[in-house]
Amino acid sequence: MFLRNCWYVAGWSHHFPAGQAVARTLLGEPIVFYRQAAGTVAALEDRCCHRLAPLSKGRIEGNDLRCMYHGLKFAPSGACVEIPGQNVVPPQARVCAYPTVEQDSWVWLWMGDPALGDPALIPPALYHNDPEWWMQTGELAYEANYQLINDNLLDLAHLSYVHENTLGRNSMSWAESRPTITPIPRGLRIARWVVNNPSPAYLKMAGGISRVDMWASYDYMVPGIFLLHTKTYPVGTAAARGDMGPDPDAAPLTETTTSQAVTPIDERHTIYYYSGCLPKDIASAEDSRQQLALFERAFAEDNAMIEAQARVIARTPEPRMLGIRADHALNQFRRLMEQLIAAETSASAAPALEAAG
Amino acid sequence: MFLRNCWYVAGWSHHFPAGQAVARTLLGEPIVFYRQAAGTVAALEDRCCHRLAPLSKGRIEGNDLRCMYHGLKFAPSGACVEIPGQNVVPPQARVCAYPTVEQDSWVWLWMGDPALGDPALIPPALYHNDPEWWMQTGELAYEANYQLINDNLLDLAHLSYVHENTLGRNSMSWAESRPTITPIPRGLRIARWVVNNPSPAYLKMAGGISRVDMWASYDYMVPGIFLLHTKTYPVGTAAARGDMGPDPDAAPLTETTTSQAVTPIDERHTIYYYSGCLPKDIASAEDSRQQLALFERAFAEDNAMIEAQARVIARTPEPRMLGIRADHALNQFRRLMEQLIAAETSASAAPALEAAG
Amino acid sequence: MFLRNCWYVAGWSHHFPAGQAVARTLLGEPIVFYRQAAGTVAALEDRCCHRLAPLSKGRIEGNDLRCMYHGLKFAPSGACVEIPGQNVVPPQARVCAYPTVEQDSWVWLWMGDPALGDPALIPPALYHNDPEWWMQTGELAYEANYQLINDNLLDLAHLSYVHENTLGRNSMSWAESRPTITPIPRGLRIARWVVNNPSPAYLKMAGGISRVDMWASYDYMVPGIFLLHTKTYPVGTAAARGDMGPDPDAAPLTETTTSQAVTPIDERHTIYYYSGCLPKDIASAEDSRQQLALFERAFAEDNAMIEAQARVIARTPEPRMLGIRADHALNQFRRLMEQLIAAETSASAAPALEAAG
Repeated sequence: MFLRNCWYVAGWSHHFPAGQAVARTLLGEPIVFYRQAAGTVAALEDRCCHRLAPLSKGRIEGNDLRCMYHGLKFAPSGACVEIPGQNVVPPQARVCAYPTVEQDSWVWLWMGDPALGDPALIPPALYHNDPEWWMQTGELAYEANYQLINDNLLDLAHLSYVHENTLGRNSMSWAESRPTITPIPRGLRIARWVVNNPSPAYLKMAGGISRVDMWASYDYMVPGIFLLHTKTYPVGTAAARGDMGPDPDAAPLTETTTSQAVTPIDERHTIYYYSGCLPKDIASAEDSRQQLALFERAFAEDNAMIEAQARVIARTPEPRMLGIRADHALNQFRRLMEQLIAAETSASAAPALEAAG
Repeated sequence: MFLRNCWYVAGWSHHFPAGQAVARTLLGEPIVFYRQAAGTVAALEDRCCHRLAPLSKGRIEGNDLRCMYHGLKFAPSGACVEIPGQNVVPPQARVCAYPTVEQDSWVWLWMGDPALGDPALIPPALYHNDPEWWMQTGELAYEANYQLINDNLLDLAHLSYVHENTLGRNSMSWAESRPTITPIPRGLRIARWVVNNPSPAYLKMAGGISRVDMWASYDYMVPGIFLLHTKTYPVGTAAARGDMGPDPDAAPLTETTTSQAVTPIDERHTIYYYSGCLPKDIASAEDSRQQLALFERAFAEDNAMIEAQARVIARTPEPRMLGIRADHALNQFRRLMEQLIAAETSASAAPALEAAG
Repeated sequence: MFLRNCWYVAGWSHHFPAGQAVARTLLGEPIVFYRQAAGTVAALEDRCCHRLAPLSKGRIEGNDLRCMYHGLKFAPSGACVEIPGQNVVPPQARVCAYPTVEQDSWVWLWMGDPALGDPALIPPALYHNDPEWWMQTGELAYEANYQLINDNLLDLAHLSYVHENTLGRNSMSWAESRPTITPIPRGLRIARWVVNNPSPAYLKMAGGISRVDMWASYDYMVPGIFLLHTKTYPVGTAAARGDMGPDPDAAPLTETTTSQAVTPIDERHTIYYYSGCLPKDIASAEDSRQQLALFERAFAEDNAMIEAQARVIARTPEPRMLGIRADHALNQFRRLMEQLIAAETSASAAPALEAAG
């Protein structure tokens, strides 16, 4: 089951070069992306209505895309505008078209009711393309259902185990800290102090400071957008401030952000897009590359664990999970997704019920 | 669904060397082929009746084939003629045997009612082994249902798109020409003028003629035999003659033939055998090799498109195709196949109905 | 269907090094093995009860195993003994634990009712680790159901066909000899003279003797334990003694043993463990290595035949086997397995019936 009335990241802008039809699968459906003459990304069902050949093997002609099996041509609206060998194009000759928005170097796709596809629902990524911040990007494919990746990102206690040698820094801080979980529109805000935590190796702290109190706060929004901002302060800050978080007037020692997006390919495959950003006033370009390298080692650890978990689930006849206290955030988010999916399912069923009544 | 009462090409003669048991799957069933002492090809069910080991791992002994798991020996009739360790061979010890015919360098197999397997039903290939013609051969495996390949061969309008850089010669002639479709016994005859068409590069035309009117006529016969004869004439011939085709007394500038056979491996896999023939009086051995090289580039284009189409169809819950005018021939051929399959299904069901009545 | 109340070989002792969690699948279930502090092998369900991550990606801590996704720790009893972030561990936090025994360099696993897992049921391997015998070991994975491998080992007539160039020594002796089949507890004893048989090349017989009468006797026990002892004598011994077997007082010319174990991975995959042993007084270390090399060539022949057979069975809608006389032993063993499986199935169903009654 997928939530349809939401924006999904379909890829980085550079994945969609001009003049190239790009095939992607989202929510189990084949989509072809291409840039129109003015650069706007069009997204069509990747399946010609004639004999179901993929349009992604087609030829871009101006704003249109021609199927290169028998030559039918489609406009960005999905309407077929030419059938070789006949003068009339019947109205049922068309494929689905999907709204797109290009924002923060991500191409976003809306696969639900087009009338509801408000671009204002797109969560703004953190400091993408900000001239005062370094930005690195990447992506990773998973053989796993998207919910397992959402689960992972909603319980950062796993940093002390999965990432003991990378993001976890051989510390139990993440496992022992207890986050504050607050509902926000279409998501959750999850914030915590990670006390007396080793500073990441890629950031050399002035004065040789090696341990810090870190305020780590992220918004996790449907369908799986993770926006994390961390700020570090001298050890002791957390004890003085508690759940209030850092003093808004106090300058942090360091600061990092990462924006991540979980996009279902189908029920058993997922793609994961991520950035890492650092402010130029405290970090060098090399620091930024080191941050990404650390991320990639850590994400490979997640990938190995989650794909192994998915294989165990797939081979278990009636898989049951035992709840523990650390599952609070992920359980809340799973419920939120279920409610939104149930709401849109009953909404789309409603007209049929009226017609029957 | 497959048509059983027809001859299928199981391979080129050279695929079945003496002394070698060859495993093939046709219509989803495992078959073993081997040459008897005098060279005749025998075809048996590739599955020992004892413990279902494949006979293709067996040993040819004269006209017989011995299973090399526990030693049962089978005659070309399918009857088991020896069981090691026992004197009596029960009559139910047997495997299916299939009629074969070797003709035109093809080994043909009959998988229907053996009483109906008349060799006269085999379509004669065009100029195979004719001493006045060059002959080249090849084969290509498809991950696709055989009907998609029949469809492809029944609508040559695709030459202008799929093969724009090979067989289509960057011309819209194929897409714009309109063929005459005539029923023939167990098939269709499809003929057309392709007007003002570039001549193929592998044939150097006398007098530097570079464009010709080409008469292209082929018979397409069950289960998927394609026999194409092309003849070229000076530009203008088509306008003068129309659907009558070329003047029988006029010598063509050039002439080519190709014979092709589509054989289902199973519902999702197909094998495709093809020849290319050129008359020695107008073409050199090198021209003939160039023709095959062009065919193989073009068939790889078909293969990529059709396998992509098959993948789209496989992932579409209820695939529907939108008919266009260019589908006339393939729709007629699909109906012919359906009628023949329905007829043989009801014929094989009839005795049971009588018995029940 | 698997027999659960029996001991299965899970691997050679050296497959389970200290400090390493080892994942194995037996009877379709994921199991993790690890050595406790004192070296005893523990076997747990390889699936954390929290979110189903595999414990085989975990960390051994003393006698316990910690899941490295979110840190739950399990004792060899299967009980969870620690959940990070909470003080109370609920009793339902546990995974299955399985009895193990390490004997004859094999680790044996019991997957049935733990109360019935009597180590005395483990068949003793022949001369494993005996200081007067050479011992070689190996293992081989099969893409086939375990019953096909049992079948193979229960009818050694196949040596004359599958192994004509290896174990069969180009002789029909195996196919022509007729074994005596005797029931023993949880198995069969199968014994025969193989008359006037070539001696194996790896044993150089004193006095240049090249042909012998071989007494070959093996016990085949549930679930698939094969214990073969062969002894050779001068040609003529068999005729003099008949089914009585060799004179107990007569020293054999040569002697060999092999112990083999067939363990189901799942319904379609099996693993096969084997040893080859030779007495040091008649064989050199090099002879022993040559024996293993011959075994491995021969087992590769079995593997190719049985995997091919399994593929034929898998593609046959309603596979039926035709019985022949040579099937006696394997039919008896299949019936024994069926009876034992039926008995334990009804035994485990009984309490439910009583409760319902």
